[in-house]
Amino acid sequence: MSIITLTTDFGLKDHFVGALKGKIFSEYREATIVDISHHIDLFNIPEASYVINAAYSSFPKGTVHLVGVDAERNKETRHIAMQWNDHFFICADNGILSILTQKIVPQKIVEITIHDRFDSNVTDIDVFVKVACHIARGGLLNVIGREISEIKTVNLLQPVISNDKATIKGNIIYIDHFGNCVTNISKQVFKDVGRGRSYEVKLGNSKTTISAIKNKYAEVATNERFTLKDYEGLKLALFNEVGLLEICIYRSNPLTVGTAKSLFGLKYQDVVSIEFKE
Amino acid sequence: MSIITLTTDFGLKDHFVGALKGKIFSEYREATIVDISHHIDLFNIPEASYVINAAYSSFPKGTVHLVGVDAERNKETRHIAMQWNDHFFICADNGILSILTQKIVPQKIVEITIHDRFDSNVTDIDVFVKVACHIARGGLLNVIGREISEIKTVNLLQPVISNDKATIKGNIIYIDHFGNCVTNISKQVFKDVGRGRSYEVKLGNSKTTISAIKNKYAEVATNERFTLKDYEGLKLALFNEVGLLEICIYRSNPLTVGTAKSLFGLKYQDVVSIEFKE
Amino acid sequence: MSIITLTTDFGLKDHFVGALKGKIFSEYREATIVDISHHIDLFNIPEASYVINAAYSSFPKGTVHLVGVDAERNKETRHIAMQWNDHFFICADNGILSILTQKIVPQKIVEITIHDRFDSNVTDIDVFVKVACHIARGGLLNVIGREISEIKTVNLLQPVISNDKATIKGNIIYIDHFGNCVTNISKQVFKDVGRGRSYEVKLGNSKTTISAIKNKYAEVATNERFTLKDYEGLKLALFNEVGLLEICIYRSNPLTVGTAKSLFGLKYQDVVSIEFKE
Repeated sequence: MSIITLTTDFGLKDHFVGALKGKIFSEYREATIVDISHHIDLFNIPEASYVINAAYSSFPKGTVHLVGVDAERNKETRHIAMQWNDHFFICADNGILSILTQKIVPQKIVEITIHDRFDSNVTDIDVFVKVACHIARGGLLNVIGREISEIKTVNLLQPVISNDKATIKGNIIYIDHFGNCVTNISKQVFKDVGRGRSYEVKLGNSKTTISAIKNKYAEVATNERFTLKDYEGLKLALFNEVGLLEICIYRSNPLTVGTAKSLFGLKYQDVVSIEFKE
Repeated sequence: MSIITLTTDFGLKDHFVGALKGKIFSEYREATIVDISHHIDLFNIPEASYVINAAYSSFPKGTVHLVGVDAERNKETRHIAMQWNDHFFICADNGILSILTQKIVPQKIVEITIHDRFDSNVTDIDVFVKVACHIARGGLLNVIGREISEIKTVNLLQPVISNDKATIKGNIIYIDHFGNCVTNISKQVFKDVGRGRSYEVKLGNSKTTISAIKNKYAEVATNERFTLKDYEGLKLALFNEVGLLEICIYRSNPLTVGTAKSLFGLKYQDVVSIEFKE
Repeated sequence: MSIITLTTDFGLKDHFVGALKGKIFSEYREATIVDISHHIDLFNIPEASYVINAAYSSFPKGTVHLVGVDAERNKETRHIAMQWNDHFFICADNGILSILTQKIVPQKIVEITIHDRFDSNVTDIDVFVKVACHIARGGLLNVIGREISEIKTVNLLQPVISNDKATIKGNIIYIDHFGNCVTNISKQVFKDVGRGRSYEVKLGNSKTTISAIKNKYAEVATNERFTLKDYEGLKLALFNEVGLLEICIYRSNPLTVGTAKSLFGLKYQDVVSIEFKE
């Protein structure tokens, strides 16, 4: 009775997502299916990683997350299913789950081994559907695969801490619908390295700096002498829901005040650094 | 057991909408969730207003409409829940509901006051989810808020009627997927002011006029001597399902015959007027 | 208890799709609704045809497919419901179902005749909703319409086989999210005409040729001396899930290695031919 979530790079115009849901309902009529995203950039593993990591914790324990990005099974890549933090993930072993396994040790990982139970026309997605429905109904991982201990890890961009601990140099790893630029600098790293020192956030090669990181938007417009309108377009750094430093614009809008992406010319992988003082 | 609808400016690429649904299912596993739109222009209150007003009446009485547009709670804006015309609406008190409350008096409005029941990481959307699930399960508004009598109204563009009642001067308030341009001139105002007189519809600053307003597309191609094909690209004015004057093109298509937006160069807020004769 | 699928050209920004679902739930609270696509090009019958044909077979028998593309009922076009291959289709009689009826004879077709049971404000979609819910609940076609034997067929582009059977000349009928170009040449026609002869696939007016058609992506990168990375950007021809010849790029990506559409300059309706040797 678990929820099945879908994260793919299929887009929404073609029949692919509809057909995927049709296959799930054909296998498991009572399924509850939730779309996370079908607009992952094509074959973009880090982006799929970021999105699934940002979404999973909003779902109940036991949820089954099917990730249809770069899902081809071939001589280099097997299909896997992982139980992690009481959630289940089904995908190709292409590194998509690194972001999770680097945080918490998985409870169980299996290489999916049921491919020979299908005829030769079976697609990668058909196999994922079979496994997802099996798990959502409460089935065991061992029934559909062979336990393994290692999966592929991709070296996601990691922030670099200078030897003297004066600087954390991170990168933009995701740009969202609001043009907000998410970096790989976590609140935890910031706290550990900064130990309460004052600091400045520097954006890319621009001279733009930000002198305070907020914890939420509601911390912004607190001066009673100004209206919210006065704050529109203000450049901001804050730790987002996922706990990562994000560069944004207060009430960001590409049509009016602009966005972090448009105003600072920030691009995917650009450098954002924190320089501590004293 | 009520339906929960979602109207946001979150877009569909990021994890936001999936996470929102995950939170609803975590709170209320039996929920029925329906997307109205996640492509409202960022922070665009009038657009959110138009879309929710156009959609709500297609849902059963008792439906709970969660509006996640400009939802930040801050020193200027509280969170509200409104029972209106036997539907429920949850949003920030930013004027989004004006279009409804100007038509019918609300049955009950509360300022949501449950924020202190959460920890400090709670988001605006978390609060909306809690309230939406409470109401969808049949809970009372008074349990989650304090009754209030007034909410913020925004002065939506209103059509202007000339003193001699010779002209109604309206504006384009929404342009849809088909390039059809919806104005703020209602069928009711047209009837009250026109009282059966003949008229001409004038579009923006162009010399384009339309001499008859239809009630539906099926009223267009009725001359037996012509095929539908002959009517393609015809400029049209009609009262749409919401009862508002809409400028459109018969079988509108940006790739072939064009759209009202492309052919007449109409933009958001452009003037459309009706001039009565006699 | 059947699933209801939706295929429209409504887009996802406006209230149309949400309102359509609201109407279905108002009529039939227990409905299971699945979106196939809402991004069909406006009024594009062949595209709607391709998508519904590619999607239907992934759904359980008995599924009701509502197609809201060019749905206007008028002097030239009636509303129909068709039982075909144990699936149900509801649409305007505009040729959308030709692709199905040319493959298998329908089990039953009715002209929908319930329009006079509604008031004058009824929309085409309202009628489709009523019919879809009736069928999904197990209702009979005869209750909502009058049996007919013929429906409109559109002459979809068909591949041309040369008199000497040396060439199959097809066209691109659909370009998908990955930039893959689907032709109207089926695996069956290829087999029947080719009878095992060797061949070359020629793309449009370019000098590009492809010398082997694969049956799935997994057949591509099989040489042990190369990594998958070496194959990225490889031009490919394969028979897709629907059994049609598709021109694609291995790990197609508009941002990196390019797509079939971008690399070969292929457009909708361009010629793709197979030339047999000997």
